[in-house]
Amino acid sequence: MQGRTYTADAEPGDTVKVAGWVHEIRDLGGIAFLILRDKSGKIQVKFEKDEMDDDLVETGLGVHRESVVVVEGDVEEEPRAPTGVEVTPESVEVLADADPELPLDPSGKVDAELSTRLDNRTLDLRKDEVKAIFEIRAEVLRAVREKFRDVYATEINTPKIVATGTEGGTELFPITYFGKEAFMNQSPQLFKQLMVGSGLERVFEIGPIFRAEEHNTPRHLNEATSIDFESAFADHQEAMDVCEAVVKAAYEAVDENCQEELEALDLQDEFEAPEGDFPRLSYEEAIERINATGKLDEQLVWGDDLPTEGEKALGEDVGTHYFITDWPSEIKPFYIKDHDDDEQLSTGFDMMHPNMELVSGGQREHRYEHLVEGFEQQGLDPESFEYYTKMFKYGMPPHAGFGLGGERLIMTMLGLGNIREAVLFPRDRQRLSP
Amino acid sequence: MQGRTYTADAEPGDTVKVAGWVHEIRDLGGIAFLILRDKSGKIQVKFEKDEMDDDLVETGLGVHRESVVVVEGDVEEEPRAPTGVEVTPESVEVLADADPELPLDPSGKVDAELSTRLDNRTLDLRKDEVKAIFEIRAEVLRAVREKFRDVYATEINTPKIVATGTEGGTELFPITYFGKEAFMNQSPQLFKQLMVGSGLERVFEIGPIFRAEEHNTPRHLNEATSIDFESAFADHQEAMDVCEAVVKAAYEAVDENCQEELEALDLQDEFEAPEGDFPRLSYEEAIERINATGKLDEQLVWGDDLPTEGEKALGEDVGTHYFITDWPSEIKPFYIKDHDDDEQLSTGFDMMHPNMELVSGGQREHRYEHLVEGFEQQGLDPESFEYYTKMFKYGMPPHAGFGLGGERLIMTMLGLGNIREAVLFPRDRQRLSP
Repeated sequence: MQGRTYTADAEPGDTVKVAGWVHEIRDLGGIAFLILRDKSGKIQVKFEKDEMDDDLVETGLGVHRESVVVVEGDVEEEPRAPTGVEVTPESVEVLADADPELPLDPSGKVDAELSTRLDNRTLDLRKDEVKAIFEIRAEVLRAVREKFRDVYATEINTPKIVATGTEGGTELFPITYFGKEAFMNQSPQLFKQLMVGSGLERVFEIGPIFRAEEHNTPRHLNEATSIDFESAFADHQEAMDVCEAVVKAAYEAVDENCQEELEALDLQDEFEAPEGDFPRLSYEEAIERINATGKLDEQLVWGDDLPTEGEKALGEDVGTHYFITDWPSEIKPFYIKDHDDDEQLSTGFDMMHPNMELVSGGQREHRYEHLVEGFEQQGLDPESFEYYTKMFKYGMPPHAGFGLGGERLIMTMLGLGNIREAVLFPRDRQRLSP
Repeated sequence: MQGRTYTADAEPGDTVKVAGWVHEIRDLGGIAFLILRDKSGKIQVKFEKDEMDDDLVETGLGVHRESVVVVEGDVEEEPRAPTGVEVTPESVEVLADADPELPLDPSGKVDAELSTRLDNRTLDLRKDEVKAIFEIRAEVLRAVREKFRDVYATEINTPKIVATGTEGGTELFPITYFGKEAFMNQSPQLFKQLMVGSGLERVFEIGPIFRAEEHNTPRHLNEATSIDFESAFADHQEAMDVCEAVVKAAYEAVDENCQEELEALDLQDEFEAPEGDFPRLSYEEAIERINATGKLDEQLVWGDDLPTEGEKALGEDVGTHYFITDWPSEIKPFYIKDHDDDEQLSTGFDMMHPNMELVSGGQREHRYEHLVEGFEQQGLDPESFEYYTKMFKYGMPPHAGFGLGGERLIMTMLGLGNIREAVLFPRDRQRLSP
């Protein structure tokens, strides 16, 4: 809008045109206030009824809450106004009138269920504390991309429509693709690996992944954002180094650039970028420490996957982000390389927030024969993955990488109770709209 | 890899460990050279057969082209070497042997069909000129994001699985979503509009879009990257300003940061960031100018869409990027607003590269009643879009935006003959793999 001033930039002495939503109208009799809200904040507009044109007063005070208005007028100092200034309007124009019955109260005075909020995201994101989540999300993605570039990774985009899934036919959404069966990709795993064998060597991708998992929990989504990294000539230790650097960079950027958003979420005191190295526990140490907490009904033994309560007990015990390394090979996917000196032991790793798993990664199997064998052991037909396996015959370097759950990163960073709060329009078993 | 040096960083006097692909072996009898290639460039490794350990010579010279090797040794000045230095090896290790029969020649000496290249992208991207396209693509996306942030837009991610398409049921790929019918989204249009009514006001998204278009041409993809922008309180003129700034920023960043890549593509002399304002032609002027070229068999009349030959004739005539504005309302989608003083005339615009359309945008219809009417006129049931339309009752500001085709931007910038060259793993009517 030509000549528009953000409310946050309105200084005493300015003549401004401000535009935004009617946040509140306070009528004190002879004097009344319209609080106008825009992207940058709020500003008070003062109506002195006896001294102003009737039409102006009627327009400014007769409008419903959440209507969109443009106000032109002079800014004056007013210590009693919320931002220390107020506008005396010369004109008020209503650009879009709002229905007086709102399905959700953007002032936040009336609590709403998450499902009502998700059905009305437009209104929900008029609340400072909800908007703040998505401003922080954008900053996290910016910082993560920057850190990847700092370590010489190239951003790539791989296809979301695929002929075969990464780990076979389970948990895939089927598509009809010009009469052929196809699927929505559940992970860029195979494609990013193909790129480390190219001249790019080191790549990252931030994009949607699709998983037809049946479970409906506060920490699963059927469409999520995956932050993927893969590097030639790296082993699992170097992949962990990059992983740690990326997560720290995200926290540091939020700490540095999002104090206002943290305040909106009432996290300004609590929020801390993790310091020091993330401890790297072997799987063996992990199960010993979990068993030692005594919090599990049954003791874990070598070969068990970690149950959710086990992860929680360990997270409380460790108290910071940490890695679990050296998993039993049999509970890691076939494309993860085993240790050269012990093929029962995998180079796979998980990176954990005290509350949940954020990352899974490892060094990959780059030897053609071992890879094809792995497909067979997993019960997959190597033929249907020939586009992938055959490239391992033409000089595929050793490589490692990881996948970091974007929404889980935001959720744990901000202490959100439900992963759906970190997505504008989440998709789950029940929710397909908006 | 611990202690690895990129070949480009190897300086005379250094002892280095370099790792990469065997680009070439030149055996001159008593002396032989292995040219090792990595992400950063190439380096010559010298084998003096009589003065070196037989095993070392055998390993270094017996390896097939495109195998992956690690070489440790001393770097010396050698003016006759391609980069002015060479490595005298202390050790050579083969990390991955390549099959001597390659489906594609990464040295580029043997030409390959595009389809062979796409089937073997890993090898294809070992060529400098192909790798350069994707380094440039990554830089374009970086620069575009930065420019959007400069104009206070927030990056968002909207769902790719949707219950209804933007413009109804045509050209959508159907999905089975937990037993329900759903679709892969063809555009973030409706979702980004919902966000301008939120506290974010101004948003952008770079993500995949999916179109089940039947035509198989050198400039269409069934899965593409859309660069979307939408802003509250903006009209079509302001959307055009942002669009122009974003495209210019992409060119300027490539000019500034990708000279090496432009050289690999032999574009270093030709490449120019567009200067001056992009001309804004009305649709009426556009058809007049096309008719005046005399290149069309039949004269265009008001209401005709522009045929491809028309776009080409006009592009040659104008010679730079340009906008076409003020289209007839009936050939623009229902969500585009008409001019207030002439409802036959739409605020829709296209932004054109001389060779093809890159962008389509406009001011949007933000008035609830007009919007619902538009759905009906388009033959769509407003009920199925209620999640979208109802938000227009609660204070939806005037807004405008655009969608820019990511691959078309790269294709026209680099003069690529086929849009598939700008995608790592393109999807078209025939191609679903790799």
